[in-house]
Amino acid sequence: MEPVKPTLARGTRDFSPEIMIRRQLIINTIRKTFEKYGFLPLETPAIEKLSVLTGKYGDEGDQLLFKILNSGDFLTGENKLDELIGDYNRLTQVISEKGLRYDLTVPFARYVVMNRNEIQFPFKRYQIQPVWRADRPQKGRYREFYQCDADIIGTNSLICEAEFATMVSEVFSSLGLKNYQLRINSRKVLEGIAETGGDREKSGMFFVILDKLDKIGLEKVKSELKEKGFKDDFIHNISKIIAFEGSNNEKMNYLHDLLQNSPAGRAGVAEISSMLDYVNAFGGDPDQIIFDITLARGLSYYTGIILEAKALNLQIGSIGGGGRYDNLTGVFGLPGISGVGFSFGIDRIYDVMQELNLFENNQAQHIRLMIANFDPEAEQYAVGILSKIRESDIVAEIYPDHAKLKKQLNYANKRNIPFVLLIGSEELSRKTCTLKDMSSGEQQEMELDEVIRKVSG
Amino acid sequence: MEPVKPTLARGTRDFSPEIMIRRQLIINTIRKTFEKYGFLPLETPAIEKLSVLTGKYGDEGDQLLFKILNSGDFLTGENKLDELIGDYNRLTQVISEKGLRYDLTVPFARYVVMNRNEIQFPFKRYQIQPVWRADRPQKGRYREFYQCDADIIGTNSLICEAEFATMVSEVFSSLGLKNYQLRINSRKVLEGIAETGGDREKSGMFFVILDKLDKIGLEKVKSELKEKGFKDDFIHNISKIIAFEGSNNEKMNYLHDLLQNSPAGRAGVAEISSMLDYVNAFGGDPDQIIFDITLARGLSYYTGIILEAKALNLQIGSIGGGGRYDNLTGVFGLPGISGVGFSFGIDRIYDVMQELNLFENNQAQHIRLMIANFDPEAEQYAVGILSKIRESDIVAEIYPDHAKLKKQLNYANKRNIPFVLLIGSEELSRKTCTLKDMSSGEQQEMELDEVIRKVSG
Repeated sequence: MEPVKPTLARGTRDFSPEIMIRRQLIINTIRKTFEKYGFLPLETPAIEKLSVLTGKYGDEGDQLLFKILNSGDFLTGENKLDELIGDYNRLTQVISEKGLRYDLTVPFARYVVMNRNEIQFPFKRYQIQPVWRADRPQKGRYREFYQCDADIIGTNSLICEAEFATMVSEVFSSLGLKNYQLRINSRKVLEGIAETGGDREKSGMFFVILDKLDKIGLEKVKSELKEKGFKDDFIHNISKIIAFEGSNNEKMNYLHDLLQNSPAGRAGVAEISSMLDYVNAFGGDPDQIIFDITLARGLSYYTGIILEAKALNLQIGSIGGGGRYDNLTGVFGLPGISGVGFSFGIDRIYDVMQELNLFENNQAQHIRLMIANFDPEAEQYAVGILSKIRESDIVAEIYPDHAKLKKQLNYANKRNIPFVLLIGSEELSRKTCTLKDMSSGEQQEMELDEVIRKVSG
Repeated sequence: MEPVKPTLARGTRDFSPEIMIRRQLIINTIRKTFEKYGFLPLETPAIEKLSVLTGKYGDEGDQLLFKILNSGDFLTGENKLDELIGDYNRLTQVISEKGLRYDLTVPFARYVVMNRNEIQFPFKRYQIQPVWRADRPQKGRYREFYQCDADIIGTNSLICEAEFATMVSEVFSSLGLKNYQLRINSRKVLEGIAETGGDREKSGMFFVILDKLDKIGLEKVKSELKEKGFKDDFIHNISKIIAFEGSNNEKMNYLHDLLQNSPAGRAGVAEISSMLDYVNAFGGDPDQIIFDITLARGLSYYTGIILEAKALNLQIGSIGGGGRYDNLTGVFGLPGISGVGFSFGIDRIYDVMQELNLFENNQAQHIRLMIANFDPEAEQYAVGILSKIRESDIVAEIYPDHAKLKKQLNYANKRNIPFVLLIGSEELSRKTCTLKDMSSGEQQEMELDEVIRKVSG
């Protein structure tokens, strides 16, 4: 058989070791923070029934589900395939019952409903797994990518929102990513604003248009609002609200007056205020959190406070976001489960850290030392030395073949291994080693204890 | 819409927090050991082109590939679907170009071929990811399960085999799993034995039949060999070889004499001997490694030493296995890449540890302390206390609602949280806390420093 020239499926990626080490740094930092805050790990399968997935992401989402072909021969028996020709949707239903998960939220909702009698509420879980979307691939958009979610469900307490804000700050500070902003708003505030236009029904449409402000600018937002039938007065007011500048407190005061006739609006402002008090009690800096009246977030299921993190001064979208919802599991027949969730965007955090050179000092996992391999006699001794070095928890290896020293040093160099240990017949007879510092090129004969001291440092 | 009663797809599992914490213990232990030995992390996508996957696992394997339906409408255009009715194979080719990975070896081979100019050989990589097989689900067999592989490619050194044996011992000892056996053999030894029957061509068939010895017993192995045309003399000799008992050295001496006319057999025995010397030099105990002449392993691509780990006294199959191969990437047009790999069976290791109660003392990730939530006034103070406790790297949380204390203590109890901190108005005024030990029920008022000391312990 002619060998296949192998390629990747469109929109997928290999994560080579160099990239993996950096991704693991990000993922481990997030995981450690989630766990410190009491979130429990959960994993759900990649394959879900299409009956679980379909209808949860809108028509567009349904189109983007990866569907798995049923096993075995589906063309015999009752399936009258000839009738299905030309009807893609019906044919698909006959030949495919399973799909790949599209996000981590719907599988989580399924899990909660299926295990509702065992779960202790409030339930805090985190989940870090890939998801799949049959989107058109483009720069920064993949068909397979990780999501990294945490949710607290079964409580309305605003401590949760404050806890997420505190976690975001802890994660980014652990990663050395200082120049970011956490923007917050409340769907209730937005609802209140929509009500000032006298048209509560249209609040959903208002969120969707407002959400585009960053991308299309104020003028286009105004003309879209006009197009959708919002009144001139309202559009005028919106422009003023959007233009309002001031501290979080000044915004709250401004909206408190503006929305005094809207119970939803008043509740929204009070919740923002209360959340900021909790952030303060957590020892966080409420000034790092910007109350942004124009923040809308895309997802339709948010009902309370919404959050979004963005790296400043970079043309990279949001690096994390979330919010409160009041009906996670209703679609699976269990209404009234509310909660709040947050999702870190690993790929974008990676891009930001790359852009800002934040990975440089974070290569702890890299190998520290390689033992060069000279001849069979010294080799047995060298293997014993390697074993003792590893016992000191130093990542080390021996070059496995008796290759030329130049080749071995070249390998160590290309892999950025900082130290090479040379053990030849002289070292063998004196029971010593010669340590070569690969950056300075200096080498020095010493005993094993000293090697371990130097290499650990 | 009527709510869907959600269920899992057949053969898939959720890993709830309790199970996840245990699985993470196993996976982290293996990962840490891989990294300590200089293996680098790699991840490949779940979705691969079918052209990459098909034909690599035999006909049976091809049947077990999960295939993904092409996106968009495939029934228009050039596809004459009516011609394809009744021809499952051709129809499948038209409507599906991608599949889910079946193991981690073929994607690794693809990665190596695609990146051969960037990779430094010898290349040590590990990969821990799920794979999918459309197998009939049964007890202990799932359609989605993790594989946990490490490979060293680009060298023939037997140091690698010895390193895997040492890693296996380190992983199991870290997990507290003492009662196991690592059995080794060599395909070359088996080839030598097959040659004593005068029929080298049949050695592949011989491996397959011998591999069943554990399951079907000696008598059935003998009758299968007879069925397949092996000579009576050979079958008689095989029985004697299988029955031979003795130390590793005695077996090597026995085979050295028996296989003196087989170059392959002699090389196999010499390699086993050399590997055991290296294990010795690594400070490992060669007696923990059993040279088992009957070990054959199922996979066809092994060509040198093979390894298999088994828990003793339990009816659970192998908990890890691997071996040397001499042509990993030939199928993708890059011949001559040899190496050795080992794979840990996470699900089976989990079952063994569960059976032997080895998880009991390993719940480090569990939450240590919950702060009970009394009223809005004490709550703000309590949130500050929580923040200080977390700064000491103690996993802690606050009950988010002002529920009845009984409900809160009940929650802490069910989640096995060992300490609850009570902060009411008295504690607030005295700036103290009351720590309740949930196992003894005792409670004591103290300052925060003392709480942190007690809870860390």
